[in-house]
Amino acid sequence: MSSTPTGLTRPLIEEARERIAGKVNVTPVLTSSTLDELTGARLFFKCENFQKGGAFKARGATNAVFALSATQAQRGVATHSSGNHGAALARAAALRGSRAYVVMPDNTAKAKRAAVARYGAEITWCPPTQAARESAVREVLAATGATLIHPYDDLLVMAGQGTAAVELLGAVPDVEVLLCPVGGGGLLSGCAVAAKTLAPAIRVIGVEPAGADDAARSLRSGRIVPVAHPNTIADGLRATIGEHPFAEIRRRVDDIITVTDEAIVRAMRQLWEVMKIVVEPSGAVPYAALLDAPPAFRGRRIGIVISGGNLDLDHLPWGSATPAGAPSPVR
Amino acid sequence: MSSTPTGLTRPLIEEARERIAGKVNVTPVLTSSTLDELTGARLFFKCENFQKGGAFKARGATNAVFALSATQAQRGVATHSSGNHGAALARAAALRGSRAYVVMPDNTAKAKRAAVARYGAEITWCPPTQAARESAVREVLAATGATLIHPYDDLLVMAGQGTAAVELLGAVPDVEVLLCPVGGGGLLSGCAVAAKTLAPAIRVIGVEPAGADDAARSLRSGRIVPVAHPNTIADGLRATIGEHPFAEIRRRVDDIITVTDEAIVRAMRQLWEVMKIVVEPSGAVPYAALLDAPPAFRGRRIGIVISGGNLDLDHLPWGSATPAGAPSPVR
Repeated sequence: MSSTPTGLTRPLIEEARERIAGKVNVTPVLTSSTLDELTGARLFFKCENFQKGGAFKARGATNAVFALSATQAQRGVATHSSGNHGAALARAAALRGSRAYVVMPDNTAKAKRAAVARYGAEITWCPPTQAARESAVREVLAATGATLIHPYDDLLVMAGQGTAAVELLGAVPDVEVLLCPVGGGGLLSGCAVAAKTLAPAIRVIGVEPAGADDAARSLRSGRIVPVAHPNTIADGLRATIGEHPFAEIRRRVDDIITVTDEAIVRAMRQLWEVMKIVVEPSGAVPYAALLDAPPAFRGRRIGIVISGGNLDLDHLPWGSATPAGAPSPVR
Repeated sequence: MSSTPTGLTRPLIEEARERIAGKVNVTPVLTSSTLDELTGARLFFKCENFQKGGAFKARGATNAVFALSATQAQRGVATHSSGNHGAALARAAALRGSRAYVVMPDNTAKAKRAAVARYGAEITWCPPTQAARESAVREVLAATGATLIHPYDDLLVMAGQGTAAVELLGAVPDVEVLLCPVGGGGLLSGCAVAAKTLAPAIRVIGVEPAGADDAARSLRSGRIVPVAHPNTIADGLRATIGEHPFAEIRRRVDDIITVTDEAIVRAMRQLWEVMKIVVEPSGAVPYAALLDAPPAFRGRRIGIVISGGNLDLDHLPWGSATPAGAPSPVR
């Protein structure tokens, strides 16, 4: 399952596309005249919040699981992602008839536990530290012979994520700028390789929370610079960029820009209010770069990957405990 | 603008379709394998929350405004809907270059004020009673010569709303049951005429909040029976059914069933969580009828009109004031 030294190529992404066809959604590309007006650009939202499991992660996980040999598949797959990748891997394994072993910190939010449990994955709880997670995964791998599927530092996973950009450019060939969120870098690297090989003139820009800006720092310094204590509401983007994604990002990505948490929440709310779609904080990150209509993007045709829509509706980054609408007799 | 005695016909709906083409959205029909599993049925959601202005009301208002004579259009249009119809009428008038006069109770929620004001309508504030609204509208009509566009008791408005069902059946011809929310009855009557003339074997069922069940009572007793004090979270469905809609509903609708507010909130939350779409309480009402997989609907192909997605995100019918996600260093 682990990566080959060759790096991510278009053929790997095309293979991924064929492998996952019918197993994940071809998600819609939505537009909004209101947001076009507000930003002064023409926006095309690739809605991975409508993906199976509510996030783009279904693409990479499904590609990796269905690329396993029969013997590997029989032993199952493992990961230590508590987020969307864990659920996506559980689903992909269930589809293939394999077992999924998911290591989760014991403080994982209820909704995320449920998403993983729903597909019948075997969950191993561990203390919420990186060391504990890694050691728990090692134990699982030793006991089961399962294949580790890393959430992003894996060429097959990256290739799967890149299919989102293939679909977007298939639907809207003349996109000039592609904005992608960047956490571990699986989505951005996959989409960058897909976009730059399909449409070499496109600008590919990663967007990252200012409180977890390891990818921006790494791109500037030419080597991976982790952020010791990531601090952002965009919980899907706190990971440090992986080696394989970073290699592709250096080659293919034009820039990485950062946005504040305040902008992320404002962007998220605007997407909910105007587009009527549920987007998680991480998924609103690229749109946050367009708030206040920055001149660089004005008049451009911009593809935006909305990476997911999984969050706890009981704990929104706004709002109050006041229940909705006291009844009134007329409308 | 007011109705003719002939009732609503297919040709009126077809004319509406041509008249509003390009001025309102052809909204998507979404499906969800998860909700199909949960309900034991095959569901097709006609997503009017993705309509211009966030609700189906754009259809009827646009049809009525663009059917005005040039002279009428010059004098403008008026209404006393504080809800989605007011905003839809304001938008349609702006599109036609007409003025819109909207009478609103002075306790109208901020989001609804903003939606009307955004399109440049002239707002007249009045005390929040039916009598005050009606008298304020009379004054506006007398002063301006504007045409009153009723939110639902108007054949052109009803015809416009019916185009939603035409589109749904165009996309999914073999729907067996159509579920529509019912408040004033404009949407249900329009969709019922469209559906029954396009697909005579279809069952058309209105779904109504138990706390505002005037349509159900009226259908049973054969005459309009208002509910003195409607009490439901579904603020778009508190109106008493109109005479013209009621005439069509008696002719065309197979049944009207009621759902509790508890079911409406549960349905709404399930649509947000699973489908990642923002649906207002009224828009979740038809899906509420499918919770707990009632046997009558099992195995059926069911069209569901999600009527709108406009609500105050600061006051959701669940949730707490706790801000989202404390940061954690890994995922």
